[in-house]
Amino acid sequence: MGDRAEILRKEIKASVLGGSGYSGLELLKILSGHPRVHIDKVFANKSAGKFLHEVHPWFKNRLDVRFESFAAESVCASDVVFIALPSGEAMNVVPQLLSLGKKVIDFGGDFRLKDISLYETFYKRTHSAPEVVAQAVYGMPEWNLSAIKSASLIANPGCYPTSAILPLAPLLKDGLISNKGIAVNSLSGVSGAGRSASSELSFVEVNESVKAYKVGAHQHIPEIKTTLEAIAGSSVSITFVPHLIPITRGIYSSIYAEIRNNITAEDVIRSYQKYYSSAPFVRVSESAIPEIKNVLYSNYIDIGFRLYPDNNHIIIFSVIDNLVKGAAGQAVQNMNILFDYDETEGLL
Amino acid sequence: MGDRAEILRKEIKASVLGGSGYSGLELLKILSGHPRVHIDKVFANKSAGKFLHEVHPWFKNRLDVRFESFAAESVCASDVVFIALPSGEAMNVVPQLLSLGKKVIDFGGDFRLKDISLYETFYKRTHSAPEVVAQAVYGMPEWNLSAIKSASLIANPGCYPTSAILPLAPLLKDGLISNKGIAVNSLSGVSGAGRSASSELSFVEVNESVKAYKVGAHQHIPEIKTTLEAIAGSSVSITFVPHLIPITRGIYSSIYAEIRNNITAEDVIRSYQKYYSSAPFVRVSESAIPEIKNVLYSNYIDIGFRLYPDNNHIIIFSVIDNLVKGAAGQAVQNMNILFDYDETEGLL
Amino acid sequence: MGDRAEILRKEIKASVLGGSGYSGLELLKILSGHPRVHIDKVFANKSAGKFLHEVHPWFKNRLDVRFESFAAESVCASDVVFIALPSGEAMNVVPQLLSLGKKVIDFGGDFRLKDISLYETFYKRTHSAPEVVAQAVYGMPEWNLSAIKSASLIANPGCYPTSAILPLAPLLKDGLISNKGIAVNSLSGVSGAGRSASSELSFVEVNESVKAYKVGAHQHIPEIKTTLEAIAGSSVSITFVPHLIPITRGIYSSIYAEIRNNITAEDVIRSYQKYYSSAPFVRVSESAIPEIKNVLYSNYIDIGFRLYPDNNHIIIFSVIDNLVKGAAGQAVQNMNILFDYDETEGLL
Amino acid sequence: MGDRAEILRKEIKASVLGGSGYSGLELLKILSGHPRVHIDKVFANKSAGKFLHEVHPWFKNRLDVRFESFAAESVCASDVVFIALPSGEAMNVVPQLLSLGKKVIDFGGDFRLKDISLYETFYKRTHSAPEVVAQAVYGMPEWNLSAIKSASLIANPGCYPTSAILPLAPLLKDGLISNKGIAVNSLSGVSGAGRSASSELSFVEVNESVKAYKVGAHQHIPEIKTTLEAIAGSSVSITFVPHLIPITRGIYSSIYAEIRNNITAEDVIRSYQKYYSSAPFVRVSESAIPEIKNVLYSNYIDIGFRLYPDNNHIIIFSVIDNLVKGAAGQAVQNMNILFDYDETEGLL
Repeated sequence: MGDRAEILRKEIKASVLGGSGYSGLELLKILSGHPRVHIDKVFANKSAGKFLHEVHPWFKNRLDVRFESFAAESVCASDVVFIALPSGEAMNVVPQLLSLGKKVIDFGGDFRLKDISLYETFYKRTHSAPEVVAQAVYGMPEWNLSAIKSASLIANPGCYPTSAILPLAPLLKDGLISNKGIAVNSLSGVSGAGRSASSELSFVEVNESVKAYKVGAHQHIPEIKTTLEAIAGSSVSITFVPHLIPITRGIYSSIYAEIRNNITAEDVIRSYQKYYSSAPFVRVSESAIPEIKNVLYSNYIDIGFRLYPDNNHIIIFSVIDNLVKGAAGQAVQNMNILFDYDETEGLL
Repeated sequence: MGDRAEILRKEIKASVLGGSGYSGLELLKILSGHPRVHIDKVFANKSAGKFLHEVHPWFKNRLDVRFESFAAESVCASDVVFIALPSGEAMNVVPQLLSLGKKVIDFGGDFRLKDISLYETFYKRTHSAPEVVAQAVYGMPEWNLSAIKSASLIANPGCYPTSAILPLAPLLKDGLISNKGIAVNSLSGVSGAGRSASSELSFVEVNESVKAYKVGAHQHIPEIKTTLEAIAGSSVSITFVPHLIPITRGIYSSIYAEIRNNITAEDVIRSYQKYYSSAPFVRVSESAIPEIKNVLYSNYIDIGFRLYPDNNHIIIFSVIDNLVKGAAGQAVQNMNILFDYDETEGLL
Repeated sequence: MGDRAEILRKEIKASVLGGSGYSGLELLKILSGHPRVHIDKVFANKSAGKFLHEVHPWFKNRLDVRFESFAAESVCASDVVFIALPSGEAMNVVPQLLSLGKKVIDFGGDFRLKDISLYETFYKRTHSAPEVVAQAVYGMPEWNLSAIKSASLIANPGCYPTSAILPLAPLLKDGLISNKGIAVNSLSGVSGAGRSASSELSFVEVNESVKAYKVGAHQHIPEIKTTLEAIAGSSVSITFVPHLIPITRGIYSSIYAEIRNNITAEDVIRSYQKYYSSAPFVRVSESAIPEIKNVLYSNYIDIGFRLYPDNNHIIIFSVIDNLVKGAAGQAVQNMNILFDYDETEGLL
Repeated sequence: MGDRAEILRKEIKASVLGGSGYSGLELLKILSGHPRVHIDKVFANKSAGKFLHEVHPWFKNRLDVRFESFAAESVCASDVVFIALPSGEAMNVVPQLLSLGKKVIDFGGDFRLKDISLYETFYKRTHSAPEVVAQAVYGMPEWNLSAIKSASLIANPGCYPTSAILPLAPLLKDGLISNKGIAVNSLSGVSGAGRSASSELSFVEVNESVKAYKVGAHQHIPEIKTTLEAIAGSSVSITFVPHLIPITRGIYSSIYAEIRNNITAEDVIRSYQKYYSSAPFVRVSESAIPEIKNVLYSNYIDIGFRLYPDNNHIIIFSVIDNLVKGAAGQAVQNMNILFDYDETEGLL
């Protein structure tokens, strides 16, 4: 009986804005299996009035909710609100949600960059809630655990930044690699581009092909750079190029960097252990080369590497599921931390 | 010199309406390699003014043409006009083209059905040029060779009908199978659905999945039925279901029919030989089961079959490339016949 | 404390023979998340001595077991033994396991057919344990629930039979469709063909293609036919053709049958409800056409249909994940029934 | 009549060793459509006695040849012999073929490296014909045209080296980029790994995943490095990492390099024009980013780039079809040069 009471006490209510996109759906899948969470409201303006399973038959007999049009007052019973909308939309609703005392976890880029002008340059729009940016906490649990615990507004990291920052941060912080001339070559599954109708994302255009995109202009570039600089305590010069490849989910990053001081594989492993030994979702290997299939539908990031003493370089590989560790899974990990649950609860 | 003169005499000019869709592009690829054809004009209203290679970089350094907006007078120098537009558009331009004395080959469904009411039911629109329908010739060279030679307007067959009619027609005509209870189960690559932006055709929606679509309502149903009835000289009862599968090109049809009179595999082969022995693009095998990869980028149809004497059934398999034998290749085959070239010229 | 004690009392130990194939791996994934099961031993002769995560990095930090070579005495502590070996191997170990008093769930075909000669014809080998066949229970919970509860040996259904029998059985039993001339056209993901090295299953051979295989000779034909005959109480004449398509997981079956007595969609729905209203993993829709993506990684079967009163036919569609409802998921469903757990426990 | 005589005079006979692998097949497809070539003999020891179309139904009704077991005397009527065997096999037959006076074009790596010890290190075997290596000409027409014209033995370049050397060579030779710290990140379709049965190359293992392989150990590393050094006239330090991605054909290389002297995009374009203005298969764009689909089934290499003056870097992208420009197409281009045909004859 004590157990049951404790469970009731711990149960929280969560609402989701943007429940019909790929990361919103992934979030609903994870939350519907989470032992501590009751799904309160699901908002999707275009699908308002429809049952979730009408839009996504996967949910039939699993989760019986109806999409609603968003209204801030509708979330009054919710403890936490997830915003799984495209960047540029969260900034219009977050101030109100915060004023209602809600914990907010935002999937988009609106609150990730402290420098508003950087945001406005890369996201190509004016920020409508700059006054809120300062209180946002960057939701990368491996580096920001204590700030996340007490945050009101969590800026959930981008998918590419997650795949690039986690493998680079320890080595930069410990001075094992040069902070200049780093190249991050990332490959992404198509779900990362979202769910809008676009002939560029059609099966025929994507299948049996590869292309780099937004070269030099991707909005995740300043997020990677400023986060690494904050961790390393020095400037970081980085070239990041995303490529679209014909897979549904997953990000593969191959990272090239110059090494310092004749470091060894043991030095690299030791650095990762120093920062990630208690991080439940980081798996580092000194032998295996990561493969996307090993992390699909899971919240893990797998990291591997090879040293090239001959030309003084290291190649680091990382893989994540862009919809889980790169979006919904990391958001739930942040929620777990926020509500003092086990960090891994409800996550695979 | 005689040779050269003959070549010049034989050279024809071809224009293409709808050069930016998948079958229009395939047509331009084939025509650009055809030894007898000069590409005159390429029309694509949305891309008018752009070079072909700007829209399709494949053509860079290969074919140097510019898209134009369509105007009937622009084709005055052309001997033949291909219409690679969605069904419903050709009927608005064909009467004018015919009055200008042009040979016309239409990829869509506007002139395939002699029964206007059937057209209007299945294509869900009013026919704007019913007076022209009677003179159209159904462009299936294996069954209509002499009519094609003298046609002004050729209705190029649909992709599914090509894959269903060619394997069934001989057996129905020779009475080897029952004209009732035939089931045609077809699988199609995504290029068959055209090139418009649609979230249903996005990589993420199509990849790693399968779905039947337009069940009982596909516009190719009356084309298959009436063509087979005309060949067999009797009514034909048929169930046709198309499915979308995650490949770019190709159609795989598996056809179930009841056999008559204890027929043998030799009877089946003999029937195919009777009608197709001089058809250059039909390959029938009594042993091999067709595979899509064997016909990709080619104008062949491969046919195979298995008899089940136990339950009196035959299963027939056929494969084509939907963009070649199912569209552009068959159109060029028709053009070759029309201009008295070798039927296989310029085709693989 | 009472709760904890009850949980301990209910906990069972399970061993797995054939842990390195695709269905064995899927089983280990499901069992590792099952709240009532402790994984005891995992056998895989070729990988004996290796850790599971060395062969399948997915399991790193998730499940820490080592493959062993099989020896019957090693399973003495197990309550249930799953056999995820290719057909033809289980019959060599099952008699011994049964004599040790173990519950056995076999994924292969060795105990599915009561008629030994039928087995020997289709599986092309001599049965080495014919005396055990009689006590095997066909593990299809929707039709065999009470027999499964008390079984010692469960023959887990084949993937294709699951996809064909569940949609057909109610309609045949209720006489809504003819028992003759049924055609089952099935499409399967490549994982259904197992995990051995084969150039026919290589990416290059399978990608962008389709082929029918084992036409008229597939070992699942007698399983489908005899199971349906037992349920319907009459002979059933059926043509079944499997096709390999370029997806990893999933089976799509399109089933063509003649209808009786001017039946309506309501009659069909009523028949499904009659038999499946309490079956937790069967979802029937009278409007939606099933798609594979809606059941991936889950134990559901989705069923849809369309009636064609014009030519007296029905088309029924079903989709499953071949590794879950078609193998490991259904096996765990059977295990849940056997040990009196909720039928859905540990299943998605 | 004179024309016909000239054609006959120009006609050459070609034989192929290793006709059953992916590059051998591609070669046979190209040669069968080449207006100057008669296919003499096709050797494939494992398939000896079979017709080509039995092994590859694509060739049915197209090319009617039978595989033979190789014997040097069988090629006495051939003008040129292509060797499409795995590396390590050509060196056992080339000396004999040369002594018979045959022109030889080898697809493998046996004659690409002048330094035998480098070959033996990276290919992990002893070279059996080191005396022949010196007379081999590296068959990269864009850089070696005159040597190819008079060669007896042509070492056809590897697929990755083709994709890396062509975009880098002009910029290195002209000193526009640093010769240190170059990173080549290449993605390859699965056909590049050959046609042997391997569970690692099965559809299920490759689909929906990505993995780097042979990191730091790939046999193409010394070929890229030594060729670039010979062209640039200085040492070159390069990191090359190949990745396997789920496409059938194509290579996508993303190349990161440090730029010198505040160079501009015009400088880069000018350098490419300087060396490639008369190279028929090199297409360079200063705006478009290359995509694999634009070069599939063709002999083109597409090159694009972006300059990053901020951090002094350039990213260069190149795409080829690994089986055409990366193997069989480039081999036919070399053959055309050798026999004084137009360089593009028979190539798309």
